[in-house]
Amino acid sequence: MAADPLRRAVAQLSRFPGVGERTATRLVYWLLRQEPGVAAEIGAALLELQGAMTRCAVCCDVGTQDPCPRCSDPKRPAHTICVVERPQDIGAIESSGEYRGRFHVLDGALSPLAGIGPERLRVRELLARLEAGAVQEVVLATDPDVDGDATALYLARLLRPAGVRVTRLAHGIAVGTELEYADKSSVARAFQNRREM
Amino acid sequence: MAADPLRRAVAQLSRFPGVGERTATRLVYWLLRQEPGVAAEIGAALLELQGAMTRCAVCCDVGTQDPCPRCSDPKRPAHTICVVERPQDIGAIESSGEYRGRFHVLDGALSPLAGIGPERLRVRELLARLEAGAVQEVVLATDPDVDGDATALYLARLLRPAGVRVTRLAHGIAVGTELEYADKSSVARAFQNRREM
Repeated sequence: MAADPLRRAVAQLSRFPGVGERTATRLVYWLLRQEPGVAAEIGAALLELQGAMTRCAVCCDVGTQDPCPRCSDPKRPAHTICVVERPQDIGAIESSGEYRGRFHVLDGALSPLAGIGPERLRVRELLARLEAGAVQEVVLATDPDVDGDATALYLARLLRPAGVRVTRLAHGIAVGTELEYADKSSVARAFQNRREM
Repeated sequence: MAADPLRRAVAQLSRFPGVGERTATRLVYWLLRQEPGVAAEIGAALLELQGAMTRCAVCCDVGTQDPCPRCSDPKRPAHTICVVERPQDIGAIESSGEYRGRFHVLDGALSPLAGIGPERLRVRELLARLEAGAVQEVVLATDPDVDGDATALYLARLLRPAGVRVTRLAHGIAVGTELEYADKSSVARAFQNRREM
């Protein structure tokens, strides 16, 4: 560990993904030019973060309460669970206004290349929720990429025998995209998932 | 201030230049996936930073000692001062191995558009060092851009009457650059600064 507070701050900020030593140095010198207290305020917020945060034992979302407000809300229908890879995916789904059921955070996706198998994901917690009974449908909202597809396939095979309906979010050309500018993977998905009119 | 530690950490990290809410959110969720203690270690380094850092009253560099090790080093010749815009510029010059004199940090450059006049820079401190006598040459190492050029011109006019030699770092085609790929401003500078052979 560097003895100099400046170099230590650079080393610590370089730990963030996508922040190299060059960027960290720029940020630290920016901090030194600010009003006294700015570095301390940012530091205090990070210091507080880890101690205050917990995981909901039901949906595995990250927050300050366990169970989280969503899982303890009696007005939220419990018969549907939307499975996402990351806590921050929940916000994207909620803001669509289309879904008001429960969620489950997998905490990643299957990735044989990165050595991430089902035991590294929150699959056991999901199965425990299904055993409790009330769930009728599981909506898989994993990413439309190789890992997300593999995870969805794995979960569908695992959950269908439990007698629940397993669906997956539709992927295709994004709303508002002109066909001319759509990426080829989205166009390919749009063809695969085309519907009768 | 947000009550939720997660949102507070996002808000605080968004204060960094170039870090928007989206990036800050990504960093905070990354922190939450790390071993316990990572957020606390980064936070502690920032918290420590501001209290421990000071400015050298002589050269205005940022560090933990005042006067700084460079200004209190009797082996470092005091007859030349290299003037830089930012503390981090000193490292670039020292690593060239070409200069072993003293430094002076201006803490910016003149910028009429941004409303930064000489009174906002550490010009007074520079003049005080010249009044002390021993200085024979001031090497201006401000950036080769509009603001850096204006600052160099201003300082040259201000310092020459004090009887010191005022020079500026040469700008031209960077060493190792093939002419074909050199940017046009560098080529223009190289022409303006061409030397007799």
